Amino acid sequence: MEGCKMMEQLNDGQKREWEKQWEVLSYGVSSIIPEEEFKEKIAKSIKNEQPLKVKLGLDPTAPDVHLGHTVVLNKLKQFQEFGHTVQLIIGDFTGKIGDPTGKSIARTALTDEEVEHNAKTYFEQFGKVIDMEKVELHYNSKWLSKVGFSEVLKLASTVTVARMLERNDFHNRYEANKPIHLHEFFYPVMQGYDSYALDSDIELGGTDQEFNVLFGRQVQEHYGREKQVVLLMPLIEGLDGVEKMSKSKGNYIGVDERPQDIFGKTMSIPDALITKYFELVSPLSIQEVQEVKRKLDEGTLHPRDAKMKLAASFVEMLHGKEAARQSREQFINVFQKKAMPDEIPEVMWEGEEEIHVVDLVKELGLLPSKSEGRRMIKNGGVRIDQEKVTDTNQTVQVTDGVVVQVGKRKFVRLRSSS
Amino acid sequence: MEGCKMMEQLNDGQKREWEKQWEVLSYGVSSIIPEEEFKEKIAKSIKNEQPLKVKLGLDPTAPDVHLGHTVVLNKLKQFQEFGHTVQLIIGDFTGKIGDPTGKSIARTALTDEEVEHNAKTYFEQFGKVIDMEKVELHYNSKWLSKVGFSEVLKLASTVTVARMLERNDFHNRYEANKPIHLHEFFYPVMQGYDSYALDSDIELGGTDQEFNVLFGRQVQEHYGREKQVVLLMPLIEGLDGVEKMSKSKGNYIGVDERPQDIFGKTMSIPDALITKYFELVSPLSIQEVQEVKRKLDEGTLHPRDAKMKLAASFVEMLHGKEAARQSREQFINVFQKKAMPDEIPEVMWEGEEEIHVVDLVKELGLLPSKSEGRRMIKNGGVRIDQEKVTDTNQTVQVTDGVVVQVGKRKFVRLRSSS
Repeated sequence: MEGCKMMEQLNDGQKREWEKQWEVLSYGVSSIIPEEEFKEKIAKSIKNEQPLKVKLGLDPTAPDVHLGHTVVLNKLKQFQEFGHTVQLIIGDFTGKIGDPTGKSIARTALTDEEVEHNAKTYFEQFGKVIDMEKVELHYNSKWLSKVGFSEVLKLASTVTVARMLERNDFHNRYEANKPIHLHEFFYPVMQGYDSYALDSDIELGGTDQEFNVLFGRQVQEHYGREKQVVLLMPLIEGLDGVEKMSKSKGNYIGVDERPQDIFGKTMSIPDALITKYFELVSPLSIQEVQEVKRKLDEGTLHPRDAKMKLAASFVEMLHGKEAARQSREQFINVFQKKAMPDEIPEVMWEGEEEIHVVDLVKELGLLPSKSEGRRMIKNGGVRIDQEKVTDTNQTVQVTDGVVVQVGKRKFVRLRSSS
Repeated sequence: MEGCKMMEQLNDGQKREWEKQWEVLSYGVSSIIPEEEFKEKIAKSIKNEQPLKVKLGLDPTAPDVHLGHTVVLNKLKQFQEFGHTVQLIIGDFTGKIGDPTGKSIARTALTDEEVEHNAKTYFEQFGKVIDMEKVELHYNSKWLSKVGFSEVLKLASTVTVARMLERNDFHNRYEANKPIHLHEFFYPVMQGYDSYALDSDIELGGTDQEFNVLFGRQVQEHYGREKQVVLLMPLIEGLDGVEKMSKSKGNYIGVDERPQDIFGKTMSIPDALITKYFELVSPLSIQEVQEVKRKLDEGTLHPRDAKMKLAASFVEMLHGKEAARQSREQFINVFQKKAMPDEIPEVMWEGEEEIHVVDLVKELGLLPSKSEGRRMIKNGGVRIDQEKVTDTNQTVQVTDGVVVQVGKRKFVRLRSSS
């Protein structure tokens, strides 16, 4: 708490509130720039009962939200839960310009309707994580379209060309002799201007956004305003466990996907990512996540079961409790299907085409008696083509290739000439 | 005339006119970019009886015009003489912004009054070479102040950062890790926009302006307009014969300087520059200049006399015929003063303090008789302290150090105790 002057003015209740906010809001953040200013801003907000303005900028050209975005959305949600104000900014100003070089098909100029539609898509998808009722929505064309050439020149004068070329992607392109068109240098400038226009206290972004997000501080300072604090969130690896989750890499879980797909994809992540996904992507509380981590460390929780919990939490967040339950069950079925041995003994079936399951199981010698068969069915231990048999009187239509399973390890595939 | 389509449509009279314009307008130009388009523009102008619009941009912060500028002004004058229209543009838009970094004292923002005053100074000084009555005057704030951010971005998209950094001064500063502020990249963009706003056919500039002047073609093309042709004029070395003439180097002849200073400074240029100054700076016709060159080559014209002719032509251009005559004469006096031998015999004068010149000359033994003295005075051959004696009855006050001269070679310095 050194250097945090406002903190000294808080009473005991306010100090406890500060500790609570600091614990949650700083949790899982990759870097807070600068940390001292963030502490001070929280204290000031508590002291003055003035919510912080927490900004997130959105590119209106790519409204497909996936769980990689959830890292930032979860952080916004935490801010909301402490009563702070989320400012979502749709970057429609540049979106409507598109790519003036005309070289990128992906960046054709958007119409008002397209921007509106994309924004709506964002909001629907974001609504699965944050409370959209409490969010401030802004379109940056509102202020950027009024900025004149002389203002642009003054803003441009606050940065050097060398500084711009230090930005990772610019640097790499410049070194590789790939063209950087001059207008691209203005994307950070505009993003920074948005922070000035909205007097943002905090801006969130991925660690790959550091340059652009920090630029807001420069612009606010240029206009003599209080500088925003930057919270950089870690980038989350995709399903492959290697590359950043992104739509173009195909290693993502979209928030609009079907429950069973979300569940199944989550089950496919490498074990090494489990705790990171719990911490950053899942909606579980810090305490719940700590417990999962502890159990994994102790070895009292199997990684597969941890992933099931994780997957269920995602489905619940995006589709509700019931969908989570169902997709979990469905996955277990599929999982067991996968657990079926590759080599299943085959039996040529010469008997009746329709037969009671208890008779079939006995005839195949999978169980010694019909009564044993009935007991097994009651325990849910008999399956025909993965489907659990629930009725002891059930019959089965024997077709070529049907698989009969008893317990976890006994399988027979029936062959039939009919 | 290959590739010059409009030329084919000219009748004989027009063709002769074309030949005349081409000879004069292309004379002394360092590069015409592209030459074929210039030929075509002249032909089109003659065919359609439509004057060409010839642009020159001016920085409103530095209104001190020197003979280095005359290179461009002479070219503008030639255009004027063929009936074309000169467009002078005062770059007040950036002038009023000044240097937004605040690092350069020289580039503080100018007020409207200062811009107006500086422009007036330019025009007064330009008026000594070109016909200001026929000039179009423009202030680029008129259109640039209306350009919005989205237009700036589109313009910026027409150029790459790498291309900008190829510009000599940017390149050197970048390599030397000296800061280039981003707004500086917009100076060529704005200059180019001026050409679009005024639909210029031609832009003049020094060879050091190549990048900026060529940029106008790019901007005009961006807006689907006919591209201007660029005429780059050679830079003229200053009095030192080495560096480009410039105020900061102190090696310049200002158009506002006194006749005798213009004359004297011209006489001080290295002989190697004589023909270049004749061709590019003097107002003499191509024919007159060719003759001077021929005589210098033949050795029938002494370089000193060529410089006197050059100097007189400058003074005449800037101050009129009479001033040219006077400053020539005055220079000859000074020149002869310089020709005075370093060792002059001294005579201790014991005679009267005031004495007739004819008596003095005889007593000193410089001439054999008073009648001879009178004849010499009438021929302008007697001088007291460089001043020619014109009256045979003139007296002289003898003071210590006074120099008496008869003819070109006889000198006596009088010493007196009084």
